[in-house]
Amino acid sequence: MITIALDAMGGDHGVSITVPAALQALELQPILKLILVGQRELIEQELKSHRSDIGERLSIHHASESVSMDEPPAQVLRNKKDSSMRVAINLVKEGVAQAVVSAGNTGALMATARFVLKTLPGIDRPAIITTLPTIHGHVHVLDLGANVDCRPEQLLQFAIMGSILVSAVENKPRPRVALLNIGAEDIKGNEAVKKANELLRASSINYCGFIEGDEIYTGDMEVIVCDGFIGNVMLKASEGLARMITHYIKQEFRRNLLTRLSALIALPVMHAFKKRVDPRRYNGATLIGLNGTVIKSHGAADALAFRYAILEALTEVENNVPERIGRELVSMQGAGETA
Amino acid sequence: MITIALDAMGGDHGVSITVPAALQALELQPILKLILVGQRELIEQELKSHRSDIGERLSIHHASESVSMDEPPAQVLRNKKDSSMRVAINLVKEGVAQAVVSAGNTGALMATARFVLKTLPGIDRPAIITTLPTIHGHVHVLDLGANVDCRPEQLLQFAIMGSILVSAVENKPRPRVALLNIGAEDIKGNEAVKKANELLRASSINYCGFIEGDEIYTGDMEVIVCDGFIGNVMLKASEGLARMITHYIKQEFRRNLLTRLSALIALPVMHAFKKRVDPRRYNGATLIGLNGTVIKSHGAADALAFRYAILEALTEVENNVPERIGRELVSMQGAGETA
Repeated sequence: MITIALDAMGGDHGVSITVPAALQALELQPILKLILVGQRELIEQELKSHRSDIGERLSIHHASESVSMDEPPAQVLRNKKDSSMRVAINLVKEGVAQAVVSAGNTGALMATARFVLKTLPGIDRPAIITTLPTIHGHVHVLDLGANVDCRPEQLLQFAIMGSILVSAVENKPRPRVALLNIGAEDIKGNEAVKKANELLRASSINYCGFIEGDEIYTGDMEVIVCDGFIGNVMLKASEGLARMITHYIKQEFRRNLLTRLSALIALPVMHAFKKRVDPRRYNGATLIGLNGTVIKSHGAADALAFRYAILEALTEVENNVPERIGRELVSMQGAGETA
Repeated sequence: MITIALDAMGGDHGVSITVPAALQALELQPILKLILVGQRELIEQELKSHRSDIGERLSIHHASESVSMDEPPAQVLRNKKDSSMRVAINLVKEGVAQAVVSAGNTGALMATARFVLKTLPGIDRPAIITTLPTIHGHVHVLDLGANVDCRPEQLLQFAIMGSILVSAVENKPRPRVALLNIGAEDIKGNEAVKKANELLRASSINYCGFIEGDEIYTGDMEVIVCDGFIGNVMLKASEGLARMITHYIKQEFRRNLLTRLSALIALPVMHAFKKRVDPRRYNGATLIGLNGTVIKSHGAADALAFRYAILEALTEVENNVPERIGRELVSMQGAGETA
């Protein structure tokens, strides 16, 4: 059995999302045990509304406080010691759970997870990594916003962690890794990227050089590495563009009676398309580089999306991701590879 | 009349694109005069194949060399003094033409334009600005790759230039300007962005604060300012994502006989949609901050796209963009606003 602690109070909707998502995940995965961390009464009420109750694979761990979405991380760290987020992370630290999933405040989650679980030896700061769809399969991208102004050594660490994650979770022994830049030639880009390019070339990972923004979605790479500022802007711009395109398509179909009729006929195709790019299926970013598995769900996630984040946590625990990263880092440090 | 010099040899396809685009633009705009700069014989041949010839509004200016798409800018500057790109820019410097349009090598175009035309007083380096579609109208974004590692003062200069461009070209007196960041709070982002935020707040432009990547496409802003590295990755990632979405839609429509039939019915809607997001309609980025109007077309542009770039040049000349930016900068420097 694998036990995952859920920050039941986190996210924009709290228990009304986390509880049904937990029930769905338990139904799908017989190997899974879940601990709902948060205000016992609220969780019990929500369980009741789904005609469910705690049982052998579902328990409640009371926590009296919650972290709000805009609370400064330092304040959370200082004052919210009995928050659902902190208590859920503590359960991983204590070995009661193997992973934690939270839809709460990213900054607070990162700060608390670092404070409680600590980073792996050889890692300066954890990064945020997620999966994005591409024309052929999908790609893992990091960092998505935990680190601005990354040093070249950090970019190398990201590449190593991303590479190990993909090889562990997807059973690809030598994933192709690229560095995001504004041109393919060695002379392009800022100093950090140029230096990281050299470090990556000298490393043992399967480094394929620079790629430009338009190559993120081609599916030619398995891991794409970038500074957290770039990654965050890129990810959010992509979300915004996808929303704009969806809006345009809807508008065109609504233009007149004829287009409305054709919309009816094209409906199954549009549904299939929508399902394929559904961001909920890609929900669940990993805070990578920690002594433990910590998954961040989108704050606005619905039950389906939060369920995907739980399943991501399960996959990473099943594949011993943090242990493998830790081991690999130690062996690389032996070989003098990391800084 | 307004005279524009075209780098007829530039881009992936040279005269086979630039010449027909020139003919189309002349037909659309009676106020326009064009000078095709490049190898006279090749241009004449191409004109003949369109059953056209030079005339009162179309002339050829011979230039013996061309700049290739991957030639290093420094080398172009040193060795290609009779290239179609350099000669076309010279025509602006000499006052023979009011603007230049080139689909050639961006780095070479930027370097040559800076060298020949010089930057406006108060501007450290020119930036690249273009228009992007949004849910409501469109938005101007800069810098798109001319400057990596921008200082806060440069970001302020970008904001000022973008603001003046939009107010001149779109007749909006106080365009809303935002700074691209990874969060909306003042404490978010890197040092350059935080400092630029302060400079922008203290300036006289209509500054609306930070926005995140997903707000680029909402249409709430008229000008978005960012470092060239971020802007380039964001723009290219958007191109890549749009291609992926188009690919998915096509694939879903081709899945089986039924979906193929529904594709036929949805065709007019899909065409209307495609036209709306057609990147060719947004072709033509401005090298802003120079003593003169320089428009960069996409290297892979077809005749329609290159025509849009010519029309962008015309609009900017008609609205005296460089002169207005120059004047405004002088008056701001008088008020001690720029660094």
